[in-house]
Amino acid sequence: MERGAKLVVVVRADLAMGKGKIAAQVAHAAVTAALLEQETAAFAAWWRAGQPKVVLRIGSEAALTEIGERAKAAGLPVHAIRDAGRTQVSAGTMTCCAIGPGDTEQIDRVTGALALL
Amino acid sequence: MERGAKLVVVVRADLAMGKGKIAAQVAHAAVTAALLEQETAAFAAWWRAGQPKVVLRIGSEAALTEIGERAKAAGLPVHAIRDAGRTQVSAGTMTCCAIGPGDTEQIDRVTGALALL
Repeated sequence: MERGAKLVVVVRADLAMGKGKIAAQVAHAAVTAALLEQETAAFAAWWRAGQPKVVLRIGSEAALTEIGERAKAAGLPVHAIRDAGRTQVSAGTMTCCAIGPGDTEQIDRVTGALALL
Repeated sequence: MERGAKLVVVVRADLAMGKGKIAAQVAHAAVTAALLEQETAAFAAWWRAGQPKVVLRIGSEAALTEIGERAKAAGLPVHAIRDAGRTQVSAGTMTCCAIGPGDTEQIDRVTGALALL
């Protein structure tokens, strides 16, 4: 049996973003990850599984950076999103980070302590 | 000068979805639209523009269905998302709909009356 695959998007909960803004940032991260990773075996497994996505929360830019570094060190694809800053947050603010598509257990070892947004 | 391109995701505001759930549904719609439309000229224009996304709200499944039909009639790509129903909403519930990537003015003629989520 194939092991599970998923895409996680970790979002900063310390920014004053409304739910539509959050959704657009998460979509930006997910689209970037999907398009740039679409030739990988992990992507294929993820797509076959129905492209499952999980949105998690984190409390600061420093913590988001750290989780991204840990994911990269584990060999997972990481795509951080910086906002253009036209609305709600300053230009260049890192708002969220896609980790995956990748093996569920491998991702859980990095993000398992984070709560759902 | 190239005319603008964008991707709109219209989300039902009448469902009891939290912000993380909404973000995952919008990401699902955006990833589906991006991957299935990536060979089109509209996708190329949208990608060059930095893949702009706008998240709009609508009040019912009937209204979401109608806006999707109007977008299709206008020749725009439409990808509706139905939830697997494991959390928060019933299985098969239509939660949101991606319209585009497409020409900004053409999309605005369909979705221009809708408010931001």
